[in-house]
Amino acid sequence: MADASPIETHAHVLTLAEPLPLDSGRALAPVEIAYQTYGRLNAAKDNAIIVCHALTGDQHLASPHPKTGKPGWWSRVVGPNRPIDTNRFFVICSNVIGSCMGSSGPSSMADDGAPFAMRFPVITIRDMVRAQVALIDHLGIDRLHGIVGGSMGGMQALSWAANFPERCGAVLVLASAPRQSAQNIAFHEVGRQAIMADPEWKGGDYYTADLDDPRKVGPEAGLAVARMAAHITYLSEQGLTQKFGRRLQDRDAKTFGFDADFQVESYLRYQGLAFTDRFDANSYLYITRAMDYFDLAEEHGGRLANAFAGLKTRMCLVSFDTDWLYPTSESRAVAHAVNAAGAPVSFVELSAPFGHDSFLLDVPALDRVIEGFL
Amino acid sequence: MADASPIETHAHVLTLAEPLPLDSGRALAPVEIAYQTYGRLNAAKDNAIIVCHALTGDQHLASPHPKTGKPGWWSRVVGPNRPIDTNRFFVICSNVIGSCMGSSGPSSMADDGAPFAMRFPVITIRDMVRAQVALIDHLGIDRLHGIVGGSMGGMQALSWAANFPERCGAVLVLASAPRQSAQNIAFHEVGRQAIMADPEWKGGDYYTADLDDPRKVGPEAGLAVARMAAHITYLSEQGLTQKFGRRLQDRDAKTFGFDADFQVESYLRYQGLAFTDRFDANSYLYITRAMDYFDLAEEHGGRLANAFAGLKTRMCLVSFDTDWLYPTSESRAVAHAVNAAGAPVSFVELSAPFGHDSFLLDVPALDRVIEGFL
Repeated sequence: MADASPIETHAHVLTLAEPLPLDSGRALAPVEIAYQTYGRLNAAKDNAIIVCHALTGDQHLASPHPKTGKPGWWSRVVGPNRPIDTNRFFVICSNVIGSCMGSSGPSSMADDGAPFAMRFPVITIRDMVRAQVALIDHLGIDRLHGIVGGSMGGMQALSWAANFPERCGAVLVLASAPRQSAQNIAFHEVGRQAIMADPEWKGGDYYTADLDDPRKVGPEAGLAVARMAAHITYLSEQGLTQKFGRRLQDRDAKTFGFDADFQVESYLRYQGLAFTDRFDANSYLYITRAMDYFDLAEEHGGRLANAFAGLKTRMCLVSFDTDWLYPTSESRAVAHAVNAAGAPVSFVELSAPFGHDSFLLDVPALDRVIEGFL
Repeated sequence: MADASPIETHAHVLTLAEPLPLDSGRALAPVEIAYQTYGRLNAAKDNAIIVCHALTGDQHLASPHPKTGKPGWWSRVVGPNRPIDTNRFFVICSNVIGSCMGSSGPSSMADDGAPFAMRFPVITIRDMVRAQVALIDHLGIDRLHGIVGGSMGGMQALSWAANFPERCGAVLVLASAPRQSAQNIAFHEVGRQAIMADPEWKGGDYYTADLDDPRKVGPEAGLAVARMAAHITYLSEQGLTQKFGRRLQDRDAKTFGFDADFQVESYLRYQGLAFTDRFDANSYLYITRAMDYFDLAEEHGGRLANAFAGLKTRMCLVSFDTDWLYPTSESRAVAHAVNAAGAPVSFVELSAPFGHDSFLLDVPALDRVIEGFL
């Protein structure tokens, strides 16, 4: 199905002319939105699909990550003759505000020439979507052909459907939820406390004056611990057992010490360390906070179906049977609510061993759902 | 059923005359074992039950904790006319070696007059049991009437059954497993990394010269994060939702900041902080390591049934339907293995909303199982 044609991609940064109003009542200024596009916008401007990224994702959807050199995080799905076919569609992926890959976030310069750090306003999922609306306004796109997102990207897709239904074509929500559960808030809080307990966090003011300074700075140890804890929640117990079990790492026997005797320890330590090379700790605080604040029913009078009252377009929800972070029951609740609101909705639970991360991994059934729905 | 009679209890510390040989090949010396007894040993010395405590538990089973003043952690179960009836039984609970409540652990003095710290040998669950065997030898008890333990206490009970079957009466294992899973090792590793990443850990050498100095010392922030992460695993998603949901803490609206807006955040922060008042960070490292190393099948030629080849007595296993840390499948695997070894075994899964912590909480069906089995 997929071919190896080079993908046409362009990197852009949009600077908004106006401050962006936020759910908190504050406004963000200046606002930069870094985004990547794949394929070409047609003359009618009706072939655009926006892909919304997850907590630690970025706009480098189908082209190499500039820091790590790794292929784009959804190269498997987006490209010529792939499930999201860039021969047909103009695919947009923007870095969410609050993040650290070019869009305005805590590491960005405020108007006074110093990084925002913790002066950055607390944002919401809806605020992230507001920035994306400003982006499609800039591109002259009235209505998106499709909106696609997994995990926090799915929250953004739901927020698009609830708050900007007239701008939405087909809405595809993967491995997500209409609100963050108590357990998920709890895991995020562990991560935030790990970061803020690191003395190198310094109240968020850890950016060096010279941001080109290649020295690593900031609460890297705390951020690594946060990532390790989160990473466990992205995988299934079954997947961890299959992948690592109790196998030892490069040794024949336990060392009776505190080295990474087990493969799973070594793997987690690596995941934690690698993350600190590409992510900003304050961004981690702000984006997890936005997720914890997300509750689509609460935003719409306490009833989830109200959120979809204006929706005229199709929605599709996909969950994974081993995902315990955003389990199937969450997607089912959205499907029921959209149905109650009278909009067309489909819902499928796919079987995959990878837990929450299934939406990022090789699940051929998912590819078929994406291609068929869009 | 239960009455309010005062419970007869005594605190003891046993100093072993000989070094304790360990699975690592090393030996521990000196060895002190702090233990609490309830009720009276009869003349035949055949009415003793040993209760094995969990990771952060201690010997203060049914009498107030000396540091916190709170009732003993199993006061509900152990006492006159309670499920483990101290009018009938002589109940022993000893602090595991490696811990910090009086038995030898990393905060204890080595022979050179300085705390062991990380010079303390890495121990195993079987080593903890060896210390308990030395204790019943000291008490002149040939054979225990019963051995009871939940979680890590259940691992000890299993290790008793596997390694000292001739000393065992009835063995009761609650919410436990014959080995630590990859996911559980992963959660422990997050906790250890949180502690060791804290600059106050100082390679484990954080004990002040004057141990009576009331100043708090050590990697308290890291230990609190470790406890927070672990605490989530002790509860069920369902229990967290029922107890906290997305309710806010003492406020009417979100603050758009990083305070503990949600009740679940406030609760977790409290759990983390309270823990540091009563537990030693190095002990947390050593005891989690002992749990991670636990694999009863591996100890017995790779086949779990081999572990129970010498068992002549009854075993009972109890799991809880909402326990995702040590799920029912683990207890079932033990039941099958004991059965395959030809020893009498019973197994029950109880329904309770509290997750792994159910074995510590008010589950009347559990009380009936304990009373009936012993």
